[in-house]
Amino acid sequence: VDEQMGLTYHVDGALVPAEEASVDVRDRGFMYGDAGFETLRVYGGTVFAWAAHVDRLERTLSTLGFAEAMPPCDDLRDRVRATVDANAFDDCWAKLSISRGVQPGKLTPGPRVDPTIVVTVGELPRGGVAGEAVWDDPATVRIATTRKPDPAAFPPAAKTHNYLNGILARRELRDTDADEAVLLDADGYVTEGATSNLFFVADGRLKTPASGRPLLPGVTRSVVLDLAREEDVPVETGSYRPNDLLRADEVFLTNTSWEVRPVTRVDGTAFEVGPLTRLLGRLFDERVEAEYDA
Amino acid sequence: VDEQMGLTYHVDGALVPAEEASVDVRDRGFMYGDAGFETLRVYGGTVFAWAAHVDRLERTLSTLGFAEAMPPCDDLRDRVRATVDANAFDDCWAKLSISRGVQPGKLTPGPRVDPTIVVTVGELPRGGVAGEAVWDDPATVRIATTRKPDPAAFPPAAKTHNYLNGILARRELRDTDADEAVLLDADGYVTEGATSNLFFVADGRLKTPASGRPLLPGVTRSVVLDLAREEDVPVETGSYRPNDLLRADEVFLTNTSWEVRPVTRVDGTAFEVGPLTRLLGRLFDERVEAEYDA
Repeated sequence: VDEQMGLTYHVDGALVPAEEASVDVRDRGFMYGDAGFETLRVYGGTVFAWAAHVDRLERTLSTLGFAEAMPPCDDLRDRVRATVDANAFDDCWAKLSISRGVQPGKLTPGPRVDPTIVVTVGELPRGGVAGEAVWDDPATVRIATTRKPDPAAFPPAAKTHNYLNGILARRELRDTDADEAVLLDADGYVTEGATSNLFFVADGRLKTPASGRPLLPGVTRSVVLDLAREEDVPVETGSYRPNDLLRADEVFLTNTSWEVRPVTRVDGTAFEVGPLTRLLGRLFDERVEAEYDA
Repeated sequence: VDEQMGLTYHVDGALVPAEEASVDVRDRGFMYGDAGFETLRVYGGTVFAWAAHVDRLERTLSTLGFAEAMPPCDDLRDRVRATVDANAFDDCWAKLSISRGVQPGKLTPGPRVDPTIVVTVGELPRGGVAGEAVWDDPATVRIATTRKPDPAAFPPAAKTHNYLNGILARRELRDTDADEAVLLDADGYVTEGATSNLFFVADGRLKTPASGRPLLPGVTRSVVLDLAREEDVPVETGSYRPNDLLRADEVFLTNTSWEVRPVTRVDGTAFEVGPLTRLLGRLFDERVEAEYDA
């Protein structure tokens, strides 16, 4: 694939040309999606919110039952840094995956874990106040018929390589102009996008589905909630129906790459890019800008 | 891993030594579990129930939205045969996986699919009337607290590399003597084991959860249902509670490797290996034996 031409990845402790970066076909990451990951954003050579990402990765691996095989935080950061440096990137995304590796036997995980640790990267434009968004346009969203799995079936806070639920939701967008699918849970409450968290503004409040609903508690979601509270914006987390969303004054999405991305359409309903969305986008940019000054 | 020493696998059209068999780290099978698979049983050089397996694989890829990238049936069979022959196996399992491969972009699948096709194998004892079971003892089962996902979240009939639900259920068995976990659906009905279908005998009938419940319609399950009907055994498929299972006269599991495997314990309840389980095991062996005479 052209977009990885000339890139260097990091696999199992070594830098390797991207086109040679591979995992064993018997790696449980390939066979079962038995792996956790984080998508990181590097601004001016610094990984944004590293502590929050590594904490979540540890929680994911704990849910999968092999957190004890996770290398120390510094070791992981060295791998990410080495990969970013090898590509001479100032601004990029990096995906850090840790799988349970190859094990003898079949589905039941064995106690001895030799994890497979992979870092892939791709260049991005500069972020911050002086930067540009990675997206060209505001998002257009559709509410998918694919539902989020029940927490008793798939732990929603674990960010794993079992991503079929999101793929099926995104597949529903083909032949439409939408680029993100929002999923409801089994009870019909709004949860999140396939790769993003969802916010909306109503009654003068910033609202987002509570982490008690089945959703991934995003790092950017958490930063945005903090920024809003610091700015004395009334914040509410709760359980919302699609109609709450459709009647909102503003809607936006967050994730590590998109940061704060306005939504201008949900199904048949149009939205303006509103003042609170703009404010939070600007505050986020300022927070990021500080990474370049550090 | 020692058990693959000296084996030959088949990756993307070529035979390769198992220890060199790998997939790109950006393969969607590794990144997202975005792949379908079948576990096949080879008896005396012949793949058992090949047509049923290849049909299900096509349905899986259709659910994932890339069935058009599936090679013709004969091409797939040639890959399996070449792998079995390269290892000089008469009796073995073979796992045939087809992933959506490497694509540019992120989560949303692209329209152009160059699938990654992998065949892995491992030797097994001879099957049939003159053979031996791959399991040493009857199964001991626990009913897991992990539930099957709702069909609206994960299509249950698709056999994909998103296998975390089964892994979490199997993880519950550690520190117990059980070797299979049976999952209930969100409504509390019995569905299947992590890698097997479940049967029980009650009121003189052979019973198994209906395919309307969230479960994988197993190839061995289908063969066993056919064998029972041919023998005029009353068969019932339906929706059953754990108590229906615990009050049964006989319980057994089926899958491609285990064939018909008796269950002698479900949670705290013991079961004898009963006459209908023995009869169906024998009829299955006879069906298999015919593969050796062919």
